[in-house]
Amino acid sequence: MSFFEKHETLIKKAVNALHERTFYAQYPEHPSPKIYGETADVDGRKAFQSLVGKPYEALNQTPTDGWIGVEESPYMQDPLNITYPNINVETLINRSEKAFHEWRKVHYKERAAILVESLERVKQKFFEIAYATMHTTGQGYMMAFQASGPHAADRALEAIAAGFEEMSRYPESTVWDKPMGKFNIQLDKSWRPVPKGVALVIGCSTFPTWNSVPGLYASLVTGNSAIMKPHPGAVLPIAMVVAEIRNVLAESGIDPEVCQLAVDTFDKTNTKELATHKKVKVIDFTGNSEFGTYLEGLPGKTVFTEKTGVNSVVLDSVANVDKVAANLAFSVALYSGQMCTAPQNFYIPESGISTPDGQVSVEEFEEKFIEQINGLVDNPKAGPFVLGTIQNKNTVNRIAEAEKLPGKLLLKSRSIENPMFNNARVATPAVLEMESKDKEQFSKELFGPVALIIKTKDTKESVALAQEMAEAYGALSCGAYTTNADTKEFIADQMSLAATPVSFNLTGGIYLNQHAGFSDFHVTGGNPAGNASFTNPDYVNRRFTWVGFREPVSK
Amino acid sequence: MSFFEKHETLIKKAVNALHERTFYAQYPEHPSPKIYGETADVDGRKAFQSLVGKPYEALNQTPTDGWIGVEESPYMQDPLNITYPNINVETLINRSEKAFHEWRKVHYKERAAILVESLERVKQKFFEIAYATMHTTGQGYMMAFQASGPHAADRALEAIAAGFEEMSRYPESTVWDKPMGKFNIQLDKSWRPVPKGVALVIGCSTFPTWNSVPGLYASLVTGNSAIMKPHPGAVLPIAMVVAEIRNVLAESGIDPEVCQLAVDTFDKTNTKELATHKKVKVIDFTGNSEFGTYLEGLPGKTVFTEKTGVNSVVLDSVANVDKVAANLAFSVALYSGQMCTAPQNFYIPESGISTPDGQVSVEEFEEKFIEQINGLVDNPKAGPFVLGTIQNKNTVNRIAEAEKLPGKLLLKSRSIENPMFNNARVATPAVLEMESKDKEQFSKELFGPVALIIKTKDTKESVALAQEMAEAYGALSCGAYTTNADTKEFIADQMSLAATPVSFNLTGGIYLNQHAGFSDFHVTGGNPAGNASFTNPDYVNRRFTWVGFREPVSK
Repeated sequence: MSFFEKHETLIKKAVNALHERTFYAQYPEHPSPKIYGETADVDGRKAFQSLVGKPYEALNQTPTDGWIGVEESPYMQDPLNITYPNINVETLINRSEKAFHEWRKVHYKERAAILVESLERVKQKFFEIAYATMHTTGQGYMMAFQASGPHAADRALEAIAAGFEEMSRYPESTVWDKPMGKFNIQLDKSWRPVPKGVALVIGCSTFPTWNSVPGLYASLVTGNSAIMKPHPGAVLPIAMVVAEIRNVLAESGIDPEVCQLAVDTFDKTNTKELATHKKVKVIDFTGNSEFGTYLEGLPGKTVFTEKTGVNSVVLDSVANVDKVAANLAFSVALYSGQMCTAPQNFYIPESGISTPDGQVSVEEFEEKFIEQINGLVDNPKAGPFVLGTIQNKNTVNRIAEAEKLPGKLLLKSRSIENPMFNNARVATPAVLEMESKDKEQFSKELFGPVALIIKTKDTKESVALAQEMAEAYGALSCGAYTTNADTKEFIADQMSLAATPVSFNLTGGIYLNQHAGFSDFHVTGGNPAGNASFTNPDYVNRRFTWVGFREPVSK
Repeated sequence: MSFFEKHETLIKKAVNALHERTFYAQYPEHPSPKIYGETADVDGRKAFQSLVGKPYEALNQTPTDGWIGVEESPYMQDPLNITYPNINVETLINRSEKAFHEWRKVHYKERAAILVESLERVKQKFFEIAYATMHTTGQGYMMAFQASGPHAADRALEAIAAGFEEMSRYPESTVWDKPMGKFNIQLDKSWRPVPKGVALVIGCSTFPTWNSVPGLYASLVTGNSAIMKPHPGAVLPIAMVVAEIRNVLAESGIDPEVCQLAVDTFDKTNTKELATHKKVKVIDFTGNSEFGTYLEGLPGKTVFTEKTGVNSVVLDSVANVDKVAANLAFSVALYSGQMCTAPQNFYIPESGISTPDGQVSVEEFEEKFIEQINGLVDNPKAGPFVLGTIQNKNTVNRIAEAEKLPGKLLLKSRSIENPMFNNARVATPAVLEMESKDKEQFSKELFGPVALIIKTKDTKESVALAQEMAEAYGALSCGAYTTNADTKEFIADQMSLAATPVSFNLTGGIYLNQHAGFSDFHVTGGNPAGNASFTNPDYVNRRFTWVGFREPVSK
């Protein structure tokens, strides 16, 4: 049985889900023993632990320059001492180009199925990947499991499904039959989706699989060969994915160099040399705006970016102010504000927020918000797990700098104890109050757990600021609270012009930071936060070219 | 009845045709009195003649700086003295932006139908447009009718259909219903295709409607307002289209400034000022590579280009060499080689072309080819009408320069008499022979009726050269002649890597220069000839952004 026969139903279900856009998940998000097996968690932790301090050999890639690796656990603030094959750029490119000419000739249906098979294998490693993610990104256990495991796999499946659909959009061949009056001109026509060549995927330190697998699988399903260049600080989770892809390729008799891992170090990075190599035709990038914008400007490349943004929350009127404060406190605390969708700027009219019980003043809201934050982080059963740790020690310094910004410091960031890792790098959210005239201060991303309460003249000014931030600096998410239908439409319309998705009136167990595969587009591609959107049709279409052939029908 | 009710069936038929890719035409290509009416031709000619020497008032646009116009008829080498409203850039942009906010709120289904209605009105003017095209581009009557009338209208309809399909791809709203174990999280979700803003379409002098209406209609259907900036030498044909779009908008109670004509002159061009204006978000361009590449590099804009290329013909083996020579002679002569798809470089192995009757030497083929060219251009019933005239007098000088290139001049360009216009600017094809080592000479576009026969070592070298030209300088078409199945697949595969469509073994009444709407993608977007492809999904998708909204279902 070919992999396509094995996975055809799954692929078609996923294609259908792309259109339905209601809830769909192939990979269960709960690390439940009932789903994944009684020993899955323990086995995963042990498997991760057994890798520490050793060369990671599962990739089966031949190094040209020995073994390297500089990952550190933010929970232990200690090196992991895991090393990976160090391969020079020319060798990476040569291996990739050779494999490309084999891979591009594999029918897209079989390519899709091989990639789905790799996800099924990755599923067996979700717990191992979760621990690898914790100890590189510093995420809490639950997020590490969900984001790097099932959610990432669903996003990858989404990209496979989108590619499958796009490549099946036109007939492989047809007869063009044009009536000319007394006779017909008949041409045999055929079309091929021709991949662009070698693709490069550049990963980030906070979501090493979730942010990288969409581009990786999108490039692969459309027939490009791919070089996965992880962030030097977060290699292992995506290395596990690449290893599984290579395993399935090898089993299918296909050169595994179709998908390579290209590890580097902070001291000697290979990113620019790879990105500017003339053979690299497609680039996916997650990371800072400056480098992302540089990549977007490279001539002759198809570039997909997710960069940074300034995400806003507009507070106008609410049904239950305590529930709102609780929901937003969680959004700010979750993974210590290190999500690209985390809210930063909270705009509140100086007259306060309308509620069924009258106006809640800015100060009253601030009190409730801070109380919710403290309640969450000081709850030993929640705080350490929701916050996780700070991935990069520079972020800790940046929080301290943010606290010195002009404005009123309402809540200082501090550390809390992690019951399992006493050396964990933890920082709770800082909250500042500013005025709308302090625009210079809040017109930039303050990466990490920093929330700014900004007093505005009215909701109209709040929306104008949220729109301006998105248009000028990018935005990946927006929260808005209003009980007025006209105001809601006004916010939707204005934020749509800034290409920013809006979550209205969220309370309870759903947060504006969360983007679900098969339903929420992640990054719209319409503002400076990035030009990619996974997974819309462009996200796969631009990785290949439709080329047509025609010939008179032989009589 | 809304226009959508009127045109829904037509739109859905066109969407279906996008997928079928067999022959489909909404607008009949034959200027037949049976189809268009007994007096349509005479009426059209008179209507055109009545416009000469006057201000063109049908646009109903208010000038800011008087009236301008510098068109000349290549058939008479005399100014037409037709003038158009001269509107400064700031006014164009302000009018466009104001209209944008009205147009973007018209539902895409109604937008599509309004645009289809405009095409139905344009259909009533096909003959008028044909004469306007003849006397600006210099095309022969038949091409002027077909290319500027029905073929352009079909391409516009194709763009409308593609936009319609893309914008209907996702549900306008749905309920996202996620099982959480003991309860479900339910969100009302909705998505909007949000247009980017003001769009600019920059036309060319040779195909003023065919090359411009796809971008114009694609931008409009997706909700952008559009400024059509024609080539100063070929304004009238597209002015007629814009006038009809404005008429239908006004009748629908919509600000006609949704679609404006922005005429300039050679001395005082407005192109760069328009293209670089910060409010212009989408640009379509047909023209020279240098300016097109400059536009592609403008940051923050979505740019679609069709630039120039070096189109190749690979001659390996043929069933009937005379038919092949005749077909290629016509391709070279048609509109004097001024089509972007016209072949220029003809690669033949030095050992000649295989035929069922043995090898035909390069010299024998050259003789046949030249005989066919001369037979065609010297036939008074065919020559003047197939050649048309030379649009730009600089092209005549360039032909003379091309004749001086190193190589063997086999056929000199000359003029022939046009029975209706004795001052017509006519130039017949020039043919030169070169060696494959003369690559520097043939590695550029020689715009106009210039054919180069290039002797190669073998077909492998021919294909390598055709591929190299396409990859380095772009190509919009390729002809190939081979009776060997392996060679055919080799050519298809190699040219597919250069993103160049290939027409195999064409003889009789179908030519490699012709690209049919709803079947042949025009420009693949995969080589330097341009980044657009009409009409593939990208061609419309990139003109708008999907933005999502979500909110808990109210209980």
